[in-house]
Amino acid sequence: MVQKLSDLARFLMKFCSACGHAVILRIPAGDQRARFVCTHCHAIHYQNPRNVVGALPVWGDQVLLCRRAIEPRYGFWTLPAGFMELGETTAQAARRETLEEAGARVELLPLFSLLNVVRAHQVHLFYRARLIDLDVRAGDESLEVRLFKEAQIPWEQIAFRTVDQTLRFFFADRQDGRFGLHTADIESG
Amino acid sequence: MVQKLSDLARFLMKFCSACGHAVILRIPAGDQRARFVCTHCHAIHYQNPRNVVGALPVWGDQVLLCRRAIEPRYGFWTLPAGFMELGETTAQAARRETLEEAGARVELLPLFSLLNVVRAHQVHLFYRARLIDLDVRAGDESLEVRLFKEAQIPWEQIAFRTVDQTLRFFFADRQDGRFGLHTADIESG
Repeated sequence: MVQKLSDLARFLMKFCSACGHAVILRIPAGDQRARFVCTHCHAIHYQNPRNVVGALPVWGDQVLLCRRAIEPRYGFWTLPAGFMELGETTAQAARRETLEEAGARVELLPLFSLLNVVRAHQVHLFYRARLIDLDVRAGDESLEVRLFKEAQIPWEQIAFRTVDQTLRFFFADRQDGRFGLHTADIESG
Repeated sequence: MVQKLSDLARFLMKFCSACGHAVILRIPAGDQRARFVCTHCHAIHYQNPRNVVGALPVWGDQVLLCRRAIEPRYGFWTLPAGFMELGETTAQAARRETLEEAGARVELLPLFSLLNVVRAHQVHLFYRARLIDLDVRAGDESLEVRLFKEAQIPWEQIAFRTVDQTLRFFFADRQDGRFGLHTADIESG
């Protein structure tokens, strides 16, 4: 992913993106929330949470993780994931991020986890996935990619709580012999 | 929901929201996509799809629909749904929209549908829900709210394809006696 997961600065707005004049925070008529509203053209600039979409790629009894080559959490392990782009579906975003960060082609399985990261204004979505082959390699944002059996997972070096949670859901479900959709609310990414 | 579902104008940007100078579309270093980039402070303004979250409220063998008092699709029937706001979870958004549009309090059940509306840059999420009581009333954005048995659903007057699709998934699952998560990609809202 190119955007930083911790990037909250984008939710601050000083000028109107339509006309360039100053904006102020106020509650528009008929609304209940303060919005950035242009003092000149009166455009209302709504802001909404963003989706981070990824995959949990599996090969036999192993899962694929990427070691991050970028901040935040440089050097920590993560599942391939990133911000959903305009013009793509959630499934396309998961496949694209898996290819970009791990050089890996996957067959996507059903959506596996939906995690609200409220303070970061993000929703994280992970699909289970099957690696099509072992032709994987670190992309620009990864130091290395590697397959891990459950006992080998570097739990102390997982980059994000949503990734930790998704992996824990996965191994619990695998133990139970059935996979469902898991939802959870997490305070920080 | 306060924002219009068809509002695509927000994805056009002429001025930098951080410094007020002109932006241009270009591909930043290390990126693969054109972004709005400020000619003065060089801020990159990423844009991402938004989530529309709602509920499918059930009372016995009936489902609750709202008749829209706003455009688009004034006068058509919909499930209560709207844009997810900063600072809330997907479940909180579903409950809030159900209260705002139908005056209804619900117990949320598992997430039921995830629908990509690629051309509108939206992801629609619907939770199944149980109405807590029949104390419902049209909110500001609804002309009326009403309970419908399956045979009474006004299929020709459903406001959005994601609502139509979610209702069809629901009645099919109810027939089968089991509810799952359904995903689909839809070209327009």
